[in-house]
Amino acid sequence: MQDVVAFLANVKPPITPALVIRRAAFAANLALMQGECAAKGVRLRAHGKMHKSSRIAAEQLARGAVGLCCQTVGEAEAYVAGGVPDVLVTAPVPPWGWPRLAALAAAARVGAVMDSAAQAQAASAAAVAAGVVLDAYVDVDPGMGRAGVAPAGAPALVQAIVALPGLRWAGIQAYCGHHQHMLPAERAAAHAAWTRRLRALLADLRSAGLAPGQVTGGGTGTAAMDLAAGVYTELQAGSYALMDVEYGDLGDLPFQPALFLAASVVSARHDSHVTCDAGHKALHPNGPPQRVVWPVGSQYRPAGDEHGAILPPNGAAEGDLVWLQPGHVDPTVALHDAYFVADEDGRLERWPIDARRTTT
Amino acid sequence: MQDVVAFLANVKPPITPALVIRRAAFAANLALMQGECAAKGVRLRAHGKMHKSSRIAAEQLARGAVGLCCQTVGEAEAYVAGGVPDVLVTAPVPPWGWPRLAALAAAARVGAVMDSAAQAQAASAAAVAAGVVLDAYVDVDPGMGRAGVAPAGAPALVQAIVALPGLRWAGIQAYCGHHQHMLPAERAAAHAAWTRRLRALLADLRSAGLAPGQVTGGGTGTAAMDLAAGVYTELQAGSYALMDVEYGDLGDLPFQPALFLAASVVSARHDSHVTCDAGHKALHPNGPPQRVVWPVGSQYRPAGDEHGAILPPNGAAEGDLVWLQPGHVDPTVALHDAYFVADEDGRLERWPIDARRTTT
Repeated sequence: MQDVVAFLANVKPPITPALVIRRAAFAANLALMQGECAAKGVRLRAHGKMHKSSRIAAEQLARGAVGLCCQTVGEAEAYVAGGVPDVLVTAPVPPWGWPRLAALAAAARVGAVMDSAAQAQAASAAAVAAGVVLDAYVDVDPGMGRAGVAPAGAPALVQAIVALPGLRWAGIQAYCGHHQHMLPAERAAAHAAWTRRLRALLADLRSAGLAPGQVTGGGTGTAAMDLAAGVYTELQAGSYALMDVEYGDLGDLPFQPALFLAASVVSARHDSHVTCDAGHKALHPNGPPQRVVWPVGSQYRPAGDEHGAILPPNGAAEGDLVWLQPGHVDPTVALHDAYFVADEDGRLERWPIDARRTTT
Repeated sequence: MQDVVAFLANVKPPITPALVIRRAAFAANLALMQGECAAKGVRLRAHGKMHKSSRIAAEQLARGAVGLCCQTVGEAEAYVAGGVPDVLVTAPVPPWGWPRLAALAAAARVGAVMDSAAQAQAASAAAVAAGVVLDAYVDVDPGMGRAGVAPAGAPALVQAIVALPGLRWAGIQAYCGHHQHMLPAERAAAHAAWTRRLRALLADLRSAGLAPGQVTGGGTGTAAMDLAAGVYTELQAGSYALMDVEYGDLGDLPFQPALFLAASVVSARHDSHVTCDAGHKALHPNGPPQRVVWPVGSQYRPAGDEHGAILPPNGAAEGDLVWLQPGHVDPTVALHDAYFVADEDGRLERWPIDARRTTT
């Protein structure tokens, strides 16, 4: 982190708390993941639920990503408005979402995952009403119990989709969120076991004449395994672009920390700690603790919605900037409306977090 | 909650997850707090860090609030732009904030708290440069250790402020955040002990010819005690307007639950639970668990950034709306960009959460 500390000493965001992207590290992360995917002949469909920014999406597309995935209808709308030509919604869509996705499919290629026949029927009806075709993916549950059909239920759902107008049977989604945060040894075993089940499902589908166009899934934590497994045709990684404490500690490809949060010391009336202007509304507490990058050797503790304690101060004085690396990037980004992208000389550019909107 | 369940059955927000305000409960909460303050001759300066909405601020002002308080410079700017004529920033301001607050003071009455001479000097210089006067409050630490001078240090800081141009010595802030969430019995004792210290400080200031114009502080959890103490001239309560699980369980005035979150069941492939589209990005985990209002008798468990489990399903089926009461309202509101305000017949009006912006 020596190099990071020296870099951040040059960076002065105009306000705090502020999310700052180190452009060089971000670019290196994008190049590394795109290169790994290209080497294995796997499509990269970067996950936009992490960064919520069509400006970042443009950087990913420019380097060869085939499109974006996202988690919500609102994100899909923001990305299409921002110029992304191909989006996949990777979570089952609520009833109100189908007409909106169908409307979107007039302007871009739009895909959605489904885990029930009722969802397929709703998607079909909306697509037919709008005169469009939606890419339909069957969401398979790899054992998380959150969404997705069990592998045994997938062929019947594929059959249902194939029979419906307005839908293009596009492939299988198998996202192993529960593998992303395992320790490396248990992750390898879990990943191998799931890969065997997924291969068997794909063989069943092929024998039934239902070979999927794509097998989409995977993530930053399992990227090397996903690419080596030879099953996925499309990688859905997101966090690799900016990284966070969690993936920095657990990942198996050498992505660099590229996202930092600057806060100001606003009170320094104690020897034990100083208080900065970043609390629960600037750093989401889900995941491992936020890491203090500067002052070196300090820890961060939330001190309410708008404040945090830096302990011990280790040289941070009232008015100073302190720098943190977010514990978990996705929900922290959802608390902000822009990034400041920093060159090595400290010059800043503002990139909006335009897919953050929730009720438009 | 029987009455709440019947009300919510009529409410159909156009998207999910969606924050819904029950207008009748919200109006009753505003009337109750304003009435309690009026009865004791205490000014109500409603805290806008909770709702982040100048539309809600307008309702509070219309009923008699003297102005708003807020926690950040960005909130102050949003509130003045939204028509609030008098704002007080209740947390020490970072260096970049002083010129922006001074610019704002050309359009509204603007106050800020300070806990160091350096802050007072920065505020004075910015006010002089802008040709305005800022209301300066001395922030006193009631034992939280977050911000504020110890009571013994307050008179010297008042003297420093009085000597500086561009500042109007306006009063003392003493916000007892650590009292808000105590159980009633220990809260009463802690509140009484602090009130004695605060009275002593005020007597010292008066003998030095430095009687404060206002003594501002207090909150929803301690409102009844704050009003009874006879020391505060201004109450800074915020959560009373919408309420949440935490204040509903701990408060000592009968405010009603007025804020709910609607989510859609997007997957129902298990007997043990259904999955809804509200996770860490829709319901902030700080505070007590989110409460499930409907289905009656279920519990909520976060299932990632965008999903939650409702267990057991208790009648909730795929496509249904489920309804929750946020555990802690402030950081949850910061995740959304609008409220849907619902009349008893289910009609909805959209109110923007305009003070949510962070980097404008």
